[in-house]
Amino acid sequence: MPISRIAVGSHQEVYHPGALKAAFAEFISTLIFVFAGQGSGMAFSKLSPGGSSPAGLISAAIAHAFALFVAVSVGANISGGHVNPAVTFGAFVGGNITLFRGILYWIAQLLGSTVACFLLRFSTGGLPTGTFGLTGISVWEALVLEIVMTFGLVYTVYATAVDPKKGSLGTIAPIAIGFIVGANILVGGAFDGASMNPAVSFGPALVSWSWGYQWVYWVGPLIGGGLAGIIYEVLFISHTHEQLPTTDY
Amino acid sequence: MPISRIAVGSHQEVYHPGALKAAFAEFISTLIFVFAGQGSGMAFSKLSPGGSSPAGLISAAIAHAFALFVAVSVGANISGGHVNPAVTFGAFVGGNITLFRGILYWIAQLLGSTVACFLLRFSTGGLPTGTFGLTGISVWEALVLEIVMTFGLVYTVYATAVDPKKGSLGTIAPIAIGFIVGANILVGGAFDGASMNPAVSFGPALVSWSWGYQWVYWVGPLIGGGLAGIIYEVLFISHTHEQLPTTDY
Amino acid sequence: MPISRIAVGSHQEVYHPGALKAAFAEFISTLIFVFAGQGSGMAFSKLSPGGSSPAGLISAAIAHAFALFVAVSVGANISGGHVNPAVTFGAFVGGNITLFRGILYWIAQLLGSTVACFLLRFSTGGLPTGTFGLTGISVWEALVLEIVMTFGLVYTVYATAVDPKKGSLGTIAPIAIGFIVGANILVGGAFDGASMNPAVSFGPALVSWSWGYQWVYWVGPLIGGGLAGIIYEVLFISHTHEQLPTTDY
Amino acid sequence: MPISRIAVGSHQEVYHPGALKAAFAEFISTLIFVFAGQGSGMAFSKLSPGGSSPAGLISAAIAHAFALFVAVSVGANISGGHVNPAVTFGAFVGGNITLFRGILYWIAQLLGSTVACFLLRFSTGGLPTGTFGLTGISVWEALVLEIVMTFGLVYTVYATAVDPKKGSLGTIAPIAIGFIVGANILVGGAFDGASMNPAVSFGPALVSWSWGYQWVYWVGPLIGGGLAGIIYEVLFISHTHEQLPTTDY
Repeated sequence: MPISRIAVGSHQEVYHPGALKAAFAEFISTLIFVFAGQGSGMAFSKLSPGGSSPAGLISAAIAHAFALFVAVSVGANISGGHVNPAVTFGAFVGGNITLFRGILYWIAQLLGSTVACFLLRFSTGGLPTGTFGLTGISVWEALVLEIVMTFGLVYTVYATAVDPKKGSLGTIAPIAIGFIVGANILVGGAFDGASMNPAVSFGPALVSWSWGYQWVYWVGPLIGGGLAGIIYEVLFISHTHEQLPTTDY
Repeated sequence: MPISRIAVGSHQEVYHPGALKAAFAEFISTLIFVFAGQGSGMAFSKLSPGGSSPAGLISAAIAHAFALFVAVSVGANISGGHVNPAVTFGAFVGGNITLFRGILYWIAQLLGSTVACFLLRFSTGGLPTGTFGLTGISVWEALVLEIVMTFGLVYTVYATAVDPKKGSLGTIAPIAIGFIVGANILVGGAFDGASMNPAVSFGPALVSWSWGYQWVYWVGPLIGGGLAGIIYEVLFISHTHEQLPTTDY
Repeated sequence: MPISRIAVGSHQEVYHPGALKAAFAEFISTLIFVFAGQGSGMAFSKLSPGGSSPAGLISAAIAHAFALFVAVSVGANISGGHVNPAVTFGAFVGGNITLFRGILYWIAQLLGSTVACFLLRFSTGGLPTGTFGLTGISVWEALVLEIVMTFGLVYTVYATAVDPKKGSLGTIAPIAIGFIVGANILVGGAFDGASMNPAVSFGPALVSWSWGYQWVYWVGPLIGGGLAGIIYEVLFISHTHEQLPTTDY
Repeated sequence: MPISRIAVGSHQEVYHPGALKAAFAEFISTLIFVFAGQGSGMAFSKLSPGGSSPAGLISAAIAHAFALFVAVSVGANISGGHVNPAVTFGAFVGGNITLFRGILYWIAQLLGSTVACFLLRFSTGGLPTGTFGLTGISVWEALVLEIVMTFGLVYTVYATAVDPKKGSLGTIAPIAIGFIVGANILVGGAFDGASMNPAVSFGPALVSWSWGYQWVYWVGPLIGGGLAGIIYEVLFISHTHEQLPTTDY
């Protein structure tokens, strides 16, 4: 029953919704997350047209941290609360979700982000959504940045939500997952926008039809998330089974 | 016993206070929330008379997030910690609160907000409370904005506090409920004030007798909250009973 | 065993430290809290000499919210984590602490605040500590402000930490207690410094020997805290015993 | 089984990883923490070249608070989540970790910080990492500052994560540990950079080969952390055993 492994929370054992219902939960969660994250950037641009600033980074960090925490929470018991194709990929690489369900999740996440961007464009009177781009760094540097930051994110998902030994950490897992993204935005936001999430960069790119560097925000997070999934699974989960075959998980 | 369904926390089963006592708890919770939320805006206006700015949005987001988290917490085991007519409406629409108790809650919430505004006006030496208005968007765009943001809020209430499958998410439910409002203020605050709560816009309007666009802050949140209640209840709660009739909830 | 009623946490039943040890824990907790709260204001004044601003309020709110959360946490299982003479008074008024222990706590809290201020003065190269004063409001308005804000704080202590029905709210009680102070600072900080805690205003006044309006920061919090203790105890705790005499609390 | 005493979380009893695996977890945790903390300062310097400001302190406080919370969480069940040589030293002084494991942890923490700084330098296009230095205070004042702040940090680790009486506080321990560092940065950041952690100052010093005052950031935290470990252990843990020899811890 692989999906129960990736779920945040404690009642995942008693409730296995169909894959479509789980995908719908991913759609709503991603919509909520991108609406707040992307929208906070649009509000900042409106109030402070001069470009990014420390206050803008703080605003983006808080909006993403709070909203991702909530988006993970509201999806946790239904879909596992991935809200991010890189997390789904990391779960797949670690053997915690099937390919079929993973593809459904990806579609739902990309759709949720896109709908969020259309809703934002309408409800702000037609303001453009932000786009992701590089400021003062090369594309390879951005790639490394996305790999490192997403590695931290997916490692956090594994340690607090997937690991069967997580114990009471599971209670605060959604907060940890949201807050590592908030912290990393204070780093990467000034250099490449700090996506860590292909859905976060896909929606704005589609709505404004601007695909420059889009591949960086797919390849980087997928490499970082995949690495985190493999390393955590091999080092800290699989070995457990070998060493402690008689415990009850 | 419908009210126990909406309660945040774990001891709701052993304690069913009378509706009046619950309404009094809603009054206090809403007073605490509006005092901090509305008051932080008044303090910002005093320190920074030039109008809204990124720092002002951040201040409003933190004040509302922290204070709503607390207001939900302190009411959770007594009234369920709604602190918001749209949440009460969403609970009613999903069949989790009776009409009579819902009306009592509404009265208590509106009273709490009004008393908070009078206390603020007195204790700040007569400064005016803020009012909600539209900045650069039309009334229909504001309506959509309020619908989307309140949908996210009430969906969060359902997923973390109402859903019988919530498990350990219930422990952090009040934080999630407060923080989604904080995140959404970083979006909507620059456009329509980001109410998501008719009580939040009613108190200032009454105290300063300024009712422009007031209906937007009622209709939007009630539509968004009602939609969230229906969708979550139908998709993720009711179906559970059909599929898993033998589980113990 | 009254003290166990006021304790935050779940193991208070198995450990009743002597009153002196509990007072020492209050001393350390208040030192940690005042060091961060008062010190953040001194750092802000150094970086931004022009007086208070929205960024200064945000800094103060975060420093106090985070540090009070921690100070309550670290004292919770030893002394109950009051960190505030008004909380101790509210606990006494509600019958949850003895007069003797209450006096010990007050002495420890005032000492902790004073030592924190001396340490700050030394380690910042002799900078003056901040002082509490009124900006644009009268002394009566400040009194009401302190009453309302401290009422919210002590009501939060009762609902999340004292109430035997608190359930899983007890886990996040220290966060709620810290964050309501953070939220209220975003309101009152611009008008009267937002003390809500006689120890917080006593230490700086003693170290800089400046006692103007000091009584406001004692009378206001004690009235607000006492009111919250009485109201919560009478309405939401005592009545429980009458209505449900057979439950196990 | 001393290491289980320092672990945050509830499943430490069933899982005793080898020391090397635990050290690897410390390496990853420290890398994640320093990447966000140090990186946020580099991003701030890029956006706001004029030197430190209130917004810069707020950004640093949030980045460190959020990232340390996460770093402690992800290591909690594997290594105990020290992420700081001063915490490891405090655990050693209190008898909660062996000398051998402590040395392994120190090496892993210093390596993690160094790798984080190299990754930051590469992925920001060669920007220099920040360095720790004194602003307006003497070296002895900085030493006292680091002692006091690290005392608060390690006291928090003991009260919320090490103390066998911690109860439900253990669930929020990583948040408290991260947030006390965030609060203290709002104080000490303007005077000595607010390290509280030798690994945090070692990495940037090595990468930029600038060792001025480095000893302050070792001696201060080790004294403060050691003092906290001894005081907490003697007063609040050891005495328990004497008084309550029949309880099960």
